Amino acid sequence: MNVAPHKSTGLKLTRVHALACLTALLLFHWVSARASAQDPLGSWEEGPAKKAILDFVARVTRQGGPDFVPPPERIATFDNDGTLWIEQPLYTQFVFALDRVKAMAPQHPEWKTQQPFKAVLENDRKTLLSSGQAGIMKILAASHTGFTSDEFATIVTEWIATARHPRFRRRYVECVYQPMLEVLAFLRTKGFKTYIVSGGGVEFIRPWAERIYGVPPEQVIGSSAKEKFELRGEEPVLLRLPQVNFVDDGPGKPVAISQYIGRRPIVAFGNSDGDQQMLEWTARGKPSLMLIIHHTDGEREYAYDRESQVGKLDKAWDEASKKGWIVVDMKKDWKTIFPID
Amino acid sequence: MNVAPHKSTGLKLTRVHALACLTALLLFHWVSARASAQDPLGSWEEGPAKKAILDFVARVTRQGGPDFVPPPERIATFDNDGTLWIEQPLYTQFVFALDRVKAMAPQHPEWKTQQPFKAVLENDRKTLLSSGQAGIMKILAASHTGFTSDEFATIVTEWIATARHPRFRRRYVECVYQPMLEVLAFLRTKGFKTYIVSGGGVEFIRPWAERIYGVPPEQVIGSSAKEKFELRGEEPVLLRLPQVNFVDDGPGKPVAISQYIGRRPIVAFGNSDGDQQMLEWTARGKPSLMLIIHHTDGEREYAYDRESQVGKLDKAWDEASKKGWIVVDMKKDWKTIFPID
Repeated sequence: MNVAPHKSTGLKLTRVHALACLTALLLFHWVSARASAQDPLGSWEEGPAKKAILDFVARVTRQGGPDFVPPPERIATFDNDGTLWIEQPLYTQFVFALDRVKAMAPQHPEWKTQQPFKAVLENDRKTLLSSGQAGIMKILAASHTGFTSDEFATIVTEWIATARHPRFRRRYVECVYQPMLEVLAFLRTKGFKTYIVSGGGVEFIRPWAERIYGVPPEQVIGSSAKEKFELRGEEPVLLRLPQVNFVDDGPGKPVAISQYIGRRPIVAFGNSDGDQQMLEWTARGKPSLMLIIHHTDGEREYAYDRESQVGKLDKAWDEASKKGWIVVDMKKDWKTIFPID
Repeated sequence: MNVAPHKSTGLKLTRVHALACLTALLLFHWVSARASAQDPLGSWEEGPAKKAILDFVARVTRQGGPDFVPPPERIATFDNDGTLWIEQPLYTQFVFALDRVKAMAPQHPEWKTQQPFKAVLENDRKTLLSSGQAGIMKILAASHTGFTSDEFATIVTEWIATARHPRFRRRYVECVYQPMLEVLAFLRTKGFKTYIVSGGGVEFIRPWAERIYGVPPEQVIGSSAKEKFELRGEEPVLLRLPQVNFVDDGPGKPVAISQYIGRRPIVAFGNSDGDQQMLEWTARGKPSLMLIIHHTDGEREYAYDRESQVGKLDKAWDEASKKGWIVVDMKKDWKTIFPID
């Protein structure tokens, strides 16, 4: 066969090649656009953490497979502070409490001379910290109780609509982690029921959790104050009392999961020692997936673990290493931290 | 016009009539069969209670209507004892407790001489009743705690599979009310989330509620014992402690609804004074539907109200009359009581 190009044939071939190249290019763009549109964890770098999540979900949803889990048993539990949103330099709920004390101060002239309130009003962090656990409890009681549950929900809703993080200047509800929003949504598309199991107050999270996380109030579990039903004339109200009802932290988390959900999760995400028992409880069932978010990104967020006052990760990290739980390295594993404005 | 029948015409007409009659008959049967197949509350007699349920559901599900309620807010709460299943002559859970004491007696030789256990073992009801609240608490603690939550679920599952009601000789799970099973199922087809909010123990109801009522564990709320997370070697367990965690009765019901669900129900069913505050709490929202089952059928079930030791209906009845809550008259309103074998 004569393969030497005839002038006109050469031209033809070139044209054909160009067209083919263009088609291939367009096809490539189209395919990669589709692939990225279809990647449910688009903010996760390819790596062991992302792979573990995708593999696990594929495994438990494969009908007829050895690890198939029926949808009603697909329970996934998520810690909130440091797992779904920012917790540094102070737990958001504590910032809220300090703001509330300042807002309520005109009705409490005695706070001008009374600790720990005086320290709050004077922004005297050193004295505030030295007031210890007892001081913190006084601030929480003053700011969180004495209202009806409806009044409190309104106060939270108003505060969260405007309060901003001191470093990022974003509203707190915009300091949630984009990769985790994707995990929540992805699991739900796969028939999972997603729960928040937080050491924070349940009534502080519920007013905005559905809008921000897609988690309805009945799937938010947290610490709580005692409440009392009473009739104000004909009007029934629930009054928030200055007494702790339940501390949903550490060993309290599996207890709360048992009492509220009555099923063992098959997926659990946490980031601190307060999540260790929830992960242990989840790990006992098979199949199960346990993940810890390790805050390693001082530039884009914060870097902290064993020595941190807030969100300390020490024993749970050791256990994760020993048991092969997935440790998410925020700096390496997350393409973005917060949702794009 | 000559209307005198011609012989052959008369015959023809008769044939036509017969055909018409047959067609009408068939049509009638077909229509009524379809109507009954399509009646979601087939065990309810036509009357104000059935009408109230159907009207309310039509109202809140009519898109664009003035009383439309979006599906996530369609919360319906049901008391259990006396509302969904039989509670006479004794609460089923108390029968379970007595059976457990007898089953555990070989491991507790001291019970032969120790009250109230001696009375239980000797079927001495009079002494048992005279032991009062303190005696009952001892029996509940001995029979319900000291196990892990998993062990307790197994014990309940085994007991409920065989235990039978003394009068009806049916298993207790067959002494549920057919008309109420229909309400539960009907509401769910209309986008409602159905919850049990029981004075009974949550861990006594959960093991069978999904199978019998279609209510999953996470939608069963009840009284509870304190639990403790502990590691037995490598094995994490939740141990049931002999301490009351929460009494989900009377004013406890709206508190539990707030803490577990975090939304106000729009439908609430109860049957006794222990449900009054749940109904008051529900009634505060608009639109809302409150119903009380009045046990009026001594022949097919039991007749009791103001004077009953079990499931006393007195103040809640008065309030229902005053506020126009629906009072279901079991004898008049229910075609059948229990599911057909």
